Amino acid sequence: MRQLYFERDSERGTEGTLDWLKDEVEELREALEEGDMKAAEKEFADVLAWLASLANVVDIDLEKAALSKYPNKCPKCGLSPCNCQF
Amino acid sequence: MRQLYFERDSERGTEGTLDWLKDEVEELREALEEGDMKAAEKEFADVLAWLASLANVVDIDLEKAALSKYPNKCPKCGLSPCNCQF
Repeated sequence: MRQLYFERDSERGTEGTLDWLKDEVEELREALEEGDMKAAEKEFADVLAWLASLANVVDIDLEKAALSKYPNKCPKCGLSPCNCQF
Repeated sequence: MRQLYFERDSERGTEGTLDWLKDEVEELREALEEGDMKAAEKEFADVLAWLASLANVVDIDLEKAALSKYPNKCPKCGLSPCNCQF
């Protein structure tokens, strides 16, 4: 994602990229509500792509952030599977 | 994520999981607006975790969906880096 889109993402900036991310989440919701799983699959890809783009813009390593918070156990209860009651 | 949270995510359902995902995107926006990069890193992890949870609930393989739409080139112009003008 960095290689593909970093230059353009940087020009768009944080706010603009966040707006795109929110739009993609909305499109994902619509695809799921319609039960269109082919479209939903593409929207999942888009949400992930925009999340990765946003991480690039603000210079955060998305994969590292995810593995740091969720190292295959729940960050709240420390168990796998999670046993929290929230 | 499936191993960790699938049972609870399934009980929550698609709509409930979508609501959590939107809340996490909002928390990410707040962390970025405050310039709190430590918090932002955790929020990135949360958004990704909820996106993965949602994919599990609707039985979509998030990684496969992403690689299928973005196989290291732009799905619109076919180039890397992307050269679209949108």
